[in-house]
Amino acid sequence: MNKIVECVPNFSEGQDLEKIARIVAPLKNKEHVKLVGVEPDAIYNRTVVTVIGEPEAVKQAIVQAIGIATKEIDLNHHQGEHKRMGATDVVPFIPIRNMSIEETVVLSKECAQLVSDLYDVPVFLYNQSATSPEREKLPNIRKGEFEGMAAKLKDPQWYPDYGKNEIHPTAGVVAIGCRPFLIAYNIDCQTMDKEACAYIAKAIRLTGGGYQCIQAGPAVMADFVQVTMNVTDFTRTSVYRAFEAVKMEAQRFDIKITGSEFIGLVPRACLEDIAAYYLKMRDSQQLATYSLEELSQVVSENLLLRGFSLDKIIEYHV
Amino acid sequence: MNKIVECVPNFSEGQDLEKIARIVAPLKNKEHVKLVGVEPDAIYNRTVVTVIGEPEAVKQAIVQAIGIATKEIDLNHHQGEHKRMGATDVVPFIPIRNMSIEETVVLSKECAQLVSDLYDVPVFLYNQSATSPEREKLPNIRKGEFEGMAAKLKDPQWYPDYGKNEIHPTAGVVAIGCRPFLIAYNIDCQTMDKEACAYIAKAIRLTGGGYQCIQAGPAVMADFVQVTMNVTDFTRTSVYRAFEAVKMEAQRFDIKITGSEFIGLVPRACLEDIAAYYLKMRDSQQLATYSLEELSQVVSENLLLRGFSLDKIIEYHV
Repeated sequence: MNKIVECVPNFSEGQDLEKIARIVAPLKNKEHVKLVGVEPDAIYNRTVVTVIGEPEAVKQAIVQAIGIATKEIDLNHHQGEHKRMGATDVVPFIPIRNMSIEETVVLSKECAQLVSDLYDVPVFLYNQSATSPEREKLPNIRKGEFEGMAAKLKDPQWYPDYGKNEIHPTAGVVAIGCRPFLIAYNIDCQTMDKEACAYIAKAIRLTGGGYQCIQAGPAVMADFVQVTMNVTDFTRTSVYRAFEAVKMEAQRFDIKITGSEFIGLVPRACLEDIAAYYLKMRDSQQLATYSLEELSQVVSENLLLRGFSLDKIIEYHV
Repeated sequence: MNKIVECVPNFSEGQDLEKIARIVAPLKNKEHVKLVGVEPDAIYNRTVVTVIGEPEAVKQAIVQAIGIATKEIDLNHHQGEHKRMGATDVVPFIPIRNMSIEETVVLSKECAQLVSDLYDVPVFLYNQSATSPEREKLPNIRKGEFEGMAAKLKDPQWYPDYGKNEIHPTAGVVAIGCRPFLIAYNIDCQTMDKEACAYIAKAIRLTGGGYQCIQAGPAVMADFVQVTMNVTDFTRTSVYRAFEAVKMEAQRFDIKITGSEFIGLVPRACLEDIAAYYLKMRDSQQLATYSLEELSQVVSENLLLRGFSLDKIIEYHV
């Protein structure tokens, strides 16, 4: 089987749809590259783009898109709710199939070198690609944002990993790196009680005594509160456990769970793992013959999924 | 408030009840020492004794009991299902109130010194008191049992921490140490399917992707299988979570949960924490006015507790 990598660049433009179309154009109609999602957010003034495909092809296409974003977006005139430091703000590469973390780190460094060489945008390596512990977490790098970045780069501790210690005058700086695959999953609680949802989130996450592979917190939406989480390894902590544990903890507060949603892509194996529990199977072997539609239906019904469609499943695209 | 320590010595005699009565006699009618449990097991040929009280008084009383066990029990004629290396096999001290791990380690070392000096029984310090990593776990120390211990002590790696490198001819050697407080808790599954219960145990324990402070495994009983567990810190992973998570995982196998039981002592705070969840309280503050009886009733009903009585609650005794 071919190697598959996912890349989820975040561009600092969420309002001008024509501009966004020009930025993502290099990601379309390319062999071995599939543009899976383009999600502009006007309030954030930011667009999250999802691409999967063969590593070399994805890297080349992403570098082209970054080139267009560098030309099109001027951060001196950018306002939005989301913190940002660059026209292309962050570029995570995620190993999906037959790719190791190490190979993906190498790929992210090749991408960083090209971005620096071609566009004079300084690059910080982050997450698994980071060159020092304080660069692992994106918020550390982004602190100060675009407006503070010129001064920050003069501090020897914050020399970029690629390029000069001067920001690109309109495109700022960018963070590029490999991050492990994770499931981003949110559960809707029919309440406006953020404190209760913070309690629930703490009860299920590792750092609160909860499940080993869950990071979670509360997020206030327009008319409900979510328990928003990352499941960092669904083969260890199954997603159905997250859902059932939130339901259980919510009973204490008489809070009803009204839905849940996956953000980004989910592998078929994750859906099989969930479906096997609700279908009362000992393991997911019997599900090998299920179509993606059948799997989606079982999971959607039991997790009360909102906004789920087949194109959220990695195997739908490859 | 006074310092309270628990001590749970295990003696290698589980059949001769008169002998056991003589061994535990020094633990009775002592000021600041309360004998909470004496549980002989004829098949194991071993008795687990539970004492709580003020540290110095507990230590002195325990040393006396060990003295009698040393005289009364001859391991050259001991047979039983449980592994053992000494007349007094293991002596854990557990901090209960106003005691740090460090203070409890000191107490265990004072006890070890006395046992070695008074009775010529070599002592290994174990668990938190261990003097090297390979001595932390009791099974490492006990490997070879009484019959292999004379030879083992000649290996410089296994010189005892106190006393000469020669076993006591009839009483062998003993392990003494501080171990952290934990809740020993078992959940009864109405099934003889050990494999399913092993799956459930794995799903809830940290090493299987489960809860942070749960260690668990399956245990086959006469007519059901238990998920047997240690909750190593109930202030982080609440016991109600263990119970509800086992129920949830058991649904996959259509296994009914018919009961649960605490082994050994439970602090009031643990019961409050459980009751607060089932009474739908945000925290356990409102439960401060509840009597031990009232707390016990709420917890017993909801966890389907077997064999629970007030004398299992630490605060009942102090």
